[in-house]
Amino acid sequence: MRAEIVAVGTELLLGQIANTNARWMSEELAAIGVDVLHHQVVGDNVDRVAEALALAASRADVVLVSGGLGPTQDDLTREAIARVAGVPLERHPELEAMLREKFRGFSGSAMPANNLQQADVPRGARYLTPERGTAPGLVVELAGGVTLYAMAGVPAEMVEIMERTVLPELAGRSGAAIVSRVLRVTGMGESAVAERLAELFEASTNPTVAFLATGGEVKVRLTAKGTTAEEAGRALEPLVAETVGRLGDVVFSTWNESLEETVIRLLGEAGRTIATAESLTGGGVSARLTSVPGASATVRGSIVAYTEAVKRDVLGVSAGTLAGPGVVSEACAREMAAGARRVLGADVALALTGVAGPEPHGGHEPGLIWIALETPDRAHARGFRVSGARDRVVRWAQQAGLDLVRRALDGSALPVSSTTI
Amino acid sequence: MRAEIVAVGTELLLGQIANTNARWMSEELAAIGVDVLHHQVVGDNVDRVAEALALAASRADVVLVSGGLGPTQDDLTREAIARVAGVPLERHPELEAMLREKFRGFSGSAMPANNLQQADVPRGARYLTPERGTAPGLVVELAGGVTLYAMAGVPAEMVEIMERTVLPELAGRSGAAIVSRVLRVTGMGESAVAERLAELFEASTNPTVAFLATGGEVKVRLTAKGTTAEEAGRALEPLVAETVGRLGDVVFSTWNESLEETVIRLLGEAGRTIATAESLTGGGVSARLTSVPGASATVRGSIVAYTEAVKRDVLGVSAGTLAGPGVVSEACAREMAAGARRVLGADVALALTGVAGPEPHGGHEPGLIWIALETPDRAHARGFRVSGARDRVVRWAQQAGLDLVRRALDGSALPVSSTTI
Repeated sequence: MRAEIVAVGTELLLGQIANTNARWMSEELAAIGVDVLHHQVVGDNVDRVAEALALAASRADVVLVSGGLGPTQDDLTREAIARVAGVPLERHPELEAMLREKFRGFSGSAMPANNLQQADVPRGARYLTPERGTAPGLVVELAGGVTLYAMAGVPAEMVEIMERTVLPELAGRSGAAIVSRVLRVTGMGESAVAERLAELFEASTNPTVAFLATGGEVKVRLTAKGTTAEEAGRALEPLVAETVGRLGDVVFSTWNESLEETVIRLLGEAGRTIATAESLTGGGVSARLTSVPGASATVRGSIVAYTEAVKRDVLGVSAGTLAGPGVVSEACAREMAAGARRVLGADVALALTGVAGPEPHGGHEPGLIWIALETPDRAHARGFRVSGARDRVVRWAQQAGLDLVRRALDGSALPVSSTTI
Repeated sequence: MRAEIVAVGTELLLGQIANTNARWMSEELAAIGVDVLHHQVVGDNVDRVAEALALAASRADVVLVSGGLGPTQDDLTREAIARVAGVPLERHPELEAMLREKFRGFSGSAMPANNLQQADVPRGARYLTPERGTAPGLVVELAGGVTLYAMAGVPAEMVEIMERTVLPELAGRSGAAIVSRVLRVTGMGESAVAERLAELFEASTNPTVAFLATGGEVKVRLTAKGTTAEEAGRALEPLVAETVGRLGDVVFSTWNESLEETVIRLLGEAGRTIATAESLTGGGVSARLTSVPGASATVRGSIVAYTEAVKRDVLGVSAGTLAGPGVVSEACAREMAAGARRVLGADVALALTGVAGPEPHGGHEPGLIWIALETPDRAHARGFRVSGARDRVVRWAQQAGLDLVRRALDGSALPVSSTTI
């Protein structure tokens, strides 16, 4: 089954927003085995929208349109669809009643007349009453067996119609159930991950594997097809185990958890609290940990020590360390971790120090990082180098730090110094 | 002048990345007065790329292509362009020499043969030697006076070719110089900003204004056209002043600086250092401040106090405050600011406490926030409510906190309590 995505909205052509709807839809369609061959974007112009829809219908089995279904005079997608389908628009009284009721709920006042165009449906089309927003989705059968789904451009409204109706219908039509699992990896590059898994998926069309590298991580998406979800899920299980076996403990989640969610969950399971001492990451590790809902049961706090004086006076880094190996050193990282654990009263403490760049610091080039972990049972430190710009150095330091905590908690090996990433 | 943007890459159709290149290009083209009427996305398939380019050339004056110019067998854009132009590809010795030299610089090893396809240029086309990456940009004159620009899909490489060649050439062709200024606003919503400026730009096609709201900010882009950049710039100046006059001190930058860049710059100009005490923001304010290159001259550090004990033991919040008004209160915010200033040895301290959600805390609903500022000369606190999810509450708290520092430094009025945003 071939699909095409048409996004309608002048704001996309002005560059005010990126076409994140097409990205999300494409990812979901790929996961159920539907091939997307084209994206189009057109502005709020009825001729151009109709031309784009006709072009899409000429080369795809399924056309997905988002945007242009709202209440303003710029919302012309309904009219363009009716033109392509060769039918008139008809006002549906039950949609009109739905709109009036929703509007009363939002505002308590009478509905402006132009809102009623949202009750117009191309003759013979199905409509999908929305929970969010007011724009009904539309399902139109075009000539040549092509199905067109239209939905609002507001992301949450689009997602609702896709998840409730479009994706289940397309998965059903493809005669197959598709199940995906996302494994997340940090501490190994995309090409190394792909190389280790190459043999496993070579020439395999079911199951399949896809990789996405981003921000110091690789997401590995495994997808299996079956006649039922149970069957597809059963096909996937041994593959998940085999993939983890080949990659080893660089896999930090087999359920698409973020690294910070994984750390907070593991800490919760172990009944332990955490604190951080941050220099080059400036509070970013703490901000990621506290972004997880419920983090307050686990996170005690952080000391961001951006100066030597704060490292000495607040964290208790020794004068000897500051005068000797200096602030970017194993000794400093270890003393920062010990200080954070003591001062903030946590079970586990993570410390990060290094040179974010772009300027050298303390005689060290940008990219040199030391991280240290202290728990009631052990202390561990690791030095490494990261290449690239300031934001990349900081991001990779965060990843390495959070992953060190994860490893200490889930029993993985703790990495040693001197890996360059 | 009408432009069309064609992005090439199967990763876009799989939804692995969003088409942020098209967004950036569209925004820049709008700023120089070029209308973008369509975006297309196609995968790494030479027939479909050639069809997409032919379609674009049939309806636009300028076609911008990104992606598919790399060294692998999936990189087919050169071949598709040659097909549409009806000319062969020719290998250019000077590009070959450039590639060999770049490759030596990257890796020190011999270059794989497939890299040489990047030295192929459609006969009669211009090529643009890149600073970043290895893929030369291409400029091809097609039938009907249509110009096609092709560039790599890697964002930084695309931006280089656009800024160095494409945008200046198109601005020159449009017979006009276009100058834009971006003013940034926080503490006022998009609709209120638009309303205050409506009269100023009503029915004006030169200069123009555009708004973009994101993450607790509104960007106001003013654009003027003239026969020279000097003329356009002169037309813009009084308008910038008038816009600032109408919006007032919610404008924190008239040069598209981020809020954290503005704060770091103002602190540097005043010769003052800063520290933060963060509860609900978890270190995010400190992470934003330290993301600015050179922040280490100004930022002392932060105490992230995610528990009552850390507020009491490290920041010195009094037992009376904790037992009385509690951790989400004006008194607690003020004492946190005083504590951060004293403990971290900074001139200026900002404190933030509140309920991020989704659960209530200390008898308060999510969204209640108290922030406090202490400087050598003054102390100020402000309470307010933010609606929405955890990430929105945290983001708006960061904005309000950073803006309070900005206001204290640039002499703006300090906002008082009880605004709901």
